Amino acid sequence: MTVTDRFEGNLPRVTAAEAAERIETGAVVATSGFGSVGYPKAVPEAIAAAAGEHELTVLTGGSVGGEIDTTLVDSGDMARRFPYLGTPTVREAANDGRVAFHDRHVSSLGDEVLYGGLAAVDVAVVEAVAVGEEWLVSSPALGQTPAFIEAADRLIVEVNHAQPLALQQLHDIYQPGAPPNREPIPLSKPGDRIGDAKIEFDAEKLVGVVETDRRDATYDFREPNDDDRAIAANFRAWLADEVERNPTMSESVRLQFGVGAIGNALMGALGDADIDRDLVYFGEVFQDGLLDLVDDGTLESASATTLALTRDGQDRLFDAVDRYAEDVVLRPVDVSNASELIERFGVVAVNSALEVDLYGHVNSTHVDGTHAFNGLGGSGDFNRSGLVTVVALPSTAADGDLSRIVPMVPHVDHTEHDIDVVVTDQGIADLRGLAPTERADRIVAVADPEYRPALRAYRERADDYGGHMPHDLETALSWPRNRQQKRE
Amino acid sequence: MTVTDRFEGNLPRVTAAEAAERIETGAVVATSGFGSVGYPKAVPEAIAAAAGEHELTVLTGGSVGGEIDTTLVDSGDMARRFPYLGTPTVREAANDGRVAFHDRHVSSLGDEVLYGGLAAVDVAVVEAVAVGEEWLVSSPALGQTPAFIEAADRLIVEVNHAQPLALQQLHDIYQPGAPPNREPIPLSKPGDRIGDAKIEFDAEKLVGVVETDRRDATYDFREPNDDDRAIAANFRAWLADEVERNPTMSESVRLQFGVGAIGNALMGALGDADIDRDLVYFGEVFQDGLLDLVDDGTLESASATTLALTRDGQDRLFDAVDRYAEDVVLRPVDVSNASELIERFGVVAVNSALEVDLYGHVNSTHVDGTHAFNGLGGSGDFNRSGLVTVVALPSTAADGDLSRIVPMVPHVDHTEHDIDVVVTDQGIADLRGLAPTERADRIVAVADPEYRPALRAYRERADDYGGHMPHDLETALSWPRNRQQKRE
Repeated sequence: MTVTDRFEGNLPRVTAAEAAERIETGAVVATSGFGSVGYPKAVPEAIAAAAGEHELTVLTGGSVGGEIDTTLVDSGDMARRFPYLGTPTVREAANDGRVAFHDRHVSSLGDEVLYGGLAAVDVAVVEAVAVGEEWLVSSPALGQTPAFIEAADRLIVEVNHAQPLALQQLHDIYQPGAPPNREPIPLSKPGDRIGDAKIEFDAEKLVGVVETDRRDATYDFREPNDDDRAIAANFRAWLADEVERNPTMSESVRLQFGVGAIGNALMGALGDADIDRDLVYFGEVFQDGLLDLVDDGTLESASATTLALTRDGQDRLFDAVDRYAEDVVLRPVDVSNASELIERFGVVAVNSALEVDLYGHVNSTHVDGTHAFNGLGGSGDFNRSGLVTVVALPSTAADGDLSRIVPMVPHVDHTEHDIDVVVTDQGIADLRGLAPTERADRIVAVADPEYRPALRAYRERADDYGGHMPHDLETALSWPRNRQQKRE
Repeated sequence: MTVTDRFEGNLPRVTAAEAAERIETGAVVATSGFGSVGYPKAVPEAIAAAAGEHELTVLTGGSVGGEIDTTLVDSGDMARRFPYLGTPTVREAANDGRVAFHDRHVSSLGDEVLYGGLAAVDVAVVEAVAVGEEWLVSSPALGQTPAFIEAADRLIVEVNHAQPLALQQLHDIYQPGAPPNREPIPLSKPGDRIGDAKIEFDAEKLVGVVETDRRDATYDFREPNDDDRAIAANFRAWLADEVERNPTMSESVRLQFGVGAIGNALMGALGDADIDRDLVYFGEVFQDGLLDLVDDGTLESASATTLALTRDGQDRLFDAVDRYAEDVVLRPVDVSNASELIERFGVVAVNSALEVDLYGHVNSTHVDGTHAFNGLGGSGDFNRSGLVTVVALPSTAADGDLSRIVPMVPHVDHTEHDIDVVVTDQGIADLRGLAPTERADRIVAVADPEYRPALRAYRERADDYGGHMPHDLETALSWPRNRQQKRE
């Protein structure tokens, strides 16, 4: 049943300022938004404009735009934030202690809010393309919106006229029930649909409906550079071998890529690849790189929780939603990133990282181990449950001044137990079946040649102390330590 | 259909020495065994006794006894080992490089062998209580035995007369199929049965059946001490609060405990607890502490993959298998530890660790970050997918000479993103909803009072450098560093 009107029934229409008044100081506010799109815009700005500091706890599905992660920080209204840092402003605030931040796996945030004791949601603020008295059709970012609405006492909806009504065709809303009587998620194929386009809610929760007309800021990816292309070529070579070897890939390959320029380059390379298999995307974020693959039929289907597209990409999709909806499904992130589905489908997880160490531990979130950078997103969901887990990253950062292959990462987001393959612009380190010192051989070989002597020298120092995973604890962290500066 | 004879049909009966001859130099051998029971005994010894060094890769479900992890190491026949170090001998060999070892999550080892490219299994060697031409009934450790048999080219079975035939009543064999057409695991309740007692196999694989009559060495847990009892009392207090708060626990609580004396003490405390809920064990290992809870009706049901019992506990269970089988189910570890089931049932995961740091990162496997100790087991399976994740450990080690609460762990097996609660003999640190510096306050408060000043001094030094997760990288690892010694 297609929704044809943006408003249906007797709705509590209010201005953004009036809606903001329904959010008390100290409230826990959970919003829609993921991949920097689909987040509420007017109500956060109205909160910021209102008098006083609201000391809000703000939860989102994932990344959101400046109306939340800049404006509410600058206005002093954000006290606490889970699970992602969407802008430089909130990142800085998390690092200097103005905002209390903790990073969570995006897949489990709904469970944590509903059952796990993370925070008791007072108000859900959700951007929608249409709303009725007891349902809404979400903007193009599903994230944890269904769980947030279920957890919240009150619901405020922003209906954004800039988001096409036709987006409903992409949505497939299925909510896992409550443990211990939760059912298996009944999804047999990555591209199937198991739910409805609408998110339903208890009519009593709806306390405000606000109208807006503003497009998302959208992503603005840098163009792939030489390193990205080299990484993509190495990944493609690895994948071409893997599909021959892996008995689960005789017909199709299910892939997930992390968001960003590297992800886009990797997807671009798939189009060129001579891989005689159906390609299926079972991931978190639908990016520009997938549009071409859908268009040319390389991709059989794509499942994600949000559209993290450039402006051009958005235009392209918005202009032909009907056609893309045949192959593209958006799901709540507790479905798109569900461990049971990632395992069921045997997904190859491909994610970037800040740095990797000699033994395959991965730092995705904390620069020099101390300063938060964006967030974990779904990398932990896919790295933990993927059939094969690939970390794809440039061998250096800062124009070559830093090696991303280091003796010991100062913060671990993904452990040696979860990482199978490291791909850089320098090559492929397939770590499967190897002991730590053997893994280190392979990993040094994909470091930038300039840094290999220093890594080898570290290994020699470490080896003097012996053990299964040798380290010289005196110098293991010397690279980030040499950058550390006392604050003024 | 109850199996009443230990042998059925036309079987290739051989001596252990003859069976060992079927295992060539360089073979990948996957054995039964988990929790130090149910592993093959005669064939490994025969391999060791045979001439030459076999350079075997040895995979097991989990911990096995000295017939494998001591004898084959001492004889020089073990070149490589996944995923657990069952004895001090193999631990030493992994640490000095004689055996190439890598630690894996026990739940996914079957998938890694069948599909993931970890190793191609040549021979499965399995202890059974009975065998036919195309089936066997396993000893009391299911582990990855079904997957190993499926992956192997050849199968050797040791039928152990010391293991009661009646054990078949405990077994529930269900094997997840191959991705991407795997079905959801159809288990609706933790104690239900969804399979058969028999493990079936392709008759052509069976190349040898050996008879043995030797009981497992069994676990020999130390008695709970004052620290264990204090930890158990703190955990019980936390759980009593949690069942009131948590909406998934209004009727029952599903619990998992790691193996060991602390686990047994925690289970013992449940019997005393005034927790007005049905208790359900959904874990990896069935330990002595659960026998009392089954006997007195405290426990509604128990699901595990193995029986890690003391000799007394084994006798107690063996003498009344019929009765225990009403409430106890053993499953392959890819079912007992399946992320989808742990999430479906909302399990409270309770595992010990070597040490925890100020921000909640956990080291379970590497002493001082370098020397392997036992292994990860299923701790990562339950810590990652549990609804609430508790780390329970004494605040000190080495008779108080070491703090188990440290500034920065030198090896991370479980990340800050996965740990919700830390319980020590000193108290409870509930970390949910807190930012890293707030987590650190709580964690210091459960350290031994003797070490709190040093931890606070570290925090002050770290704070000078700022950031979301402050560290002084000069001294972050100074505690293990001061213990590090160059090898001779």
